[in-house]
Amino acid sequence: MRTLKLTLAYDGTRFVGWQRQAEGESIQGLLEEALAKFEGAPVTVHGAGRTDAGVHALGQVASAHVAFRHAPATLGRALNAILPDDIQVLDVAEAPPDFHARFSARSKSYRYQLRTSEVGDPFTRAFEWQLSERLDVDGMRAAAASLVGMHDFAAFQSAGTDVTSSIRTIFRSEIRGPEGSAPLVVGHGSSISQSGADPWGPRSVLVYEVTADGFLRHMVRTIVGTLVEIGRGWRPVASVTQLIDGGTRADAGATAPPHGLFLVRVDYD
Amino acid sequence: MRTLKLTLAYDGTRFVGWQRQAEGESIQGLLEEALAKFEGAPVTVHGAGRTDAGVHALGQVASAHVAFRHAPATLGRALNAILPDDIQVLDVAEAPPDFHARFSARSKSYRYQLRTSEVGDPFTRAFEWQLSERLDVDGMRAAAASLVGMHDFAAFQSAGTDVTSSIRTIFRSEIRGPEGSAPLVVGHGSSISQSGADPWGPRSVLVYEVTADGFLRHMVRTIVGTLVEIGRGWRPVASVTQLIDGGTRADAGATAPPHGLFLVRVDYD
Repeated sequence: MRTLKLTLAYDGTRFVGWQRQAEGESIQGLLEEALAKFEGAPVTVHGAGRTDAGVHALGQVASAHVAFRHAPATLGRALNAILPDDIQVLDVAEAPPDFHARFSARSKSYRYQLRTSEVGDPFTRAFEWQLSERLDVDGMRAAAASLVGMHDFAAFQSAGTDVTSSIRTIFRSEIRGPEGSAPLVVGHGSSISQSGADPWGPRSVLVYEVTADGFLRHMVRTIVGTLVEIGRGWRPVASVTQLIDGGTRADAGATAPPHGLFLVRVDYD
Repeated sequence: MRTLKLTLAYDGTRFVGWQRQAEGESIQGLLEEALAKFEGAPVTVHGAGRTDAGVHALGQVASAHVAFRHAPATLGRALNAILPDDIQVLDVAEAPPDFHARFSARSKSYRYQLRTSEVGDPFTRAFEWQLSERLDVDGMRAAAASLVGMHDFAAFQSAGTDVTSSIRTIFRSEIRGPEGSAPLVVGHGSSISQSGADPWGPRSVLVYEVTADGFLRHMVRTIVGTLVEIGRGWRPVASVTQLIDGGTRADAGATAPPHGLFLVRVDYD
């Protein structure tokens, strides 16, 4: 058997999430079905991150053991021909026999996109949380920075998980923007010179970037929901430090909606 | 009665087009319904360009005569609260009594987005025509440039229109990209450093920009379809000159799909 490492991007809008479910289409399910056509037998794939319904990926990684002999590049093209337009295989590579997309991962990086303009952007609304108020971005930045390090993130975890420990190490946690942020899913704002205003300018896009050795269920979305409550002035910056010092889920903010979240990349040794 | 000038953006994906139809949702229909709530009576709006089903707008302009007294900025906010997320009012302004969005327009500008990478971008697929082959961009550029000026564009017009003349003046007709194009609806390509490749890089995006005093039915899409046939080597660059020297619709290329097309702006004196 060969071990394959597949890198994928997807628009998660219409899926039940990465993981196969009893009902609805999942990215895992479609990828397994596509691989089974080459294998002539069922194939199981493991994803690095089990993204929820509506969450997107720019660089999800999956591993699979297969017997067929197609060259990686050929397989990538063939998979893209089979998979729907909202899933794209970016890369297929041979991996060591013991490679496992989830257990071998050293770190994962997520991004969450927020828009704070009064007017939303019709072209990017599927990929950002639209908030029409101004936020205290400095407070959000300070709170985001205080999450870096090894902490117990139990307060940021949704119920219904079976993990044995809620201790994780965050390597990076920062808010980028509203100034100087690189183009992400950028709207057409700069074209609207006609109306004088630039309601969708890059200045209204905030991006939360987080890298950790692992994430608990809904952890990024709960962090973002808490940061937004700080940005709105509903809770002090220091409340984040209290949350990682033994807070409970009820003490943290509401879970941010899924459609602003992207699994950006997974790193391996 | 007051005359209003409204500037709108919309994602045309799910609409039957700008114009009200017997079945399905149109931008005109939704805007008229929203304005009627303030007027307490039916309101008719006129659009500068009657975009087809699936065609988008970054700066469509509409005019309407209304009696109600709401300030333009208040009306803009109220309309955005009523209209669905895929339509946004960018600007509302008072206009002279004889202002008519279509008849007063001096020029209109359209943009058509093409992607020539092997792999499509899941996040922008709704806004560009995905072509997996390499195109002769220099040939397309030369052909695009030869359209500038006053010509008979009958060969680029679909059947079923009632215009009296097919003579139009094109002020600008050019292909931008693949290098140095400004961000439009930009994908996340730059993030995919993990796989080494950058399959969605800006280098794979071609944008056709055209400004004219008016456009015939399907004119931009037929121009783009013809330019792509030149890019593929299916027809010579000079065939465009023949088309505007008395060609017929059958001589021109296939109509490009609607979802790559944007009405960018409308200019008035």
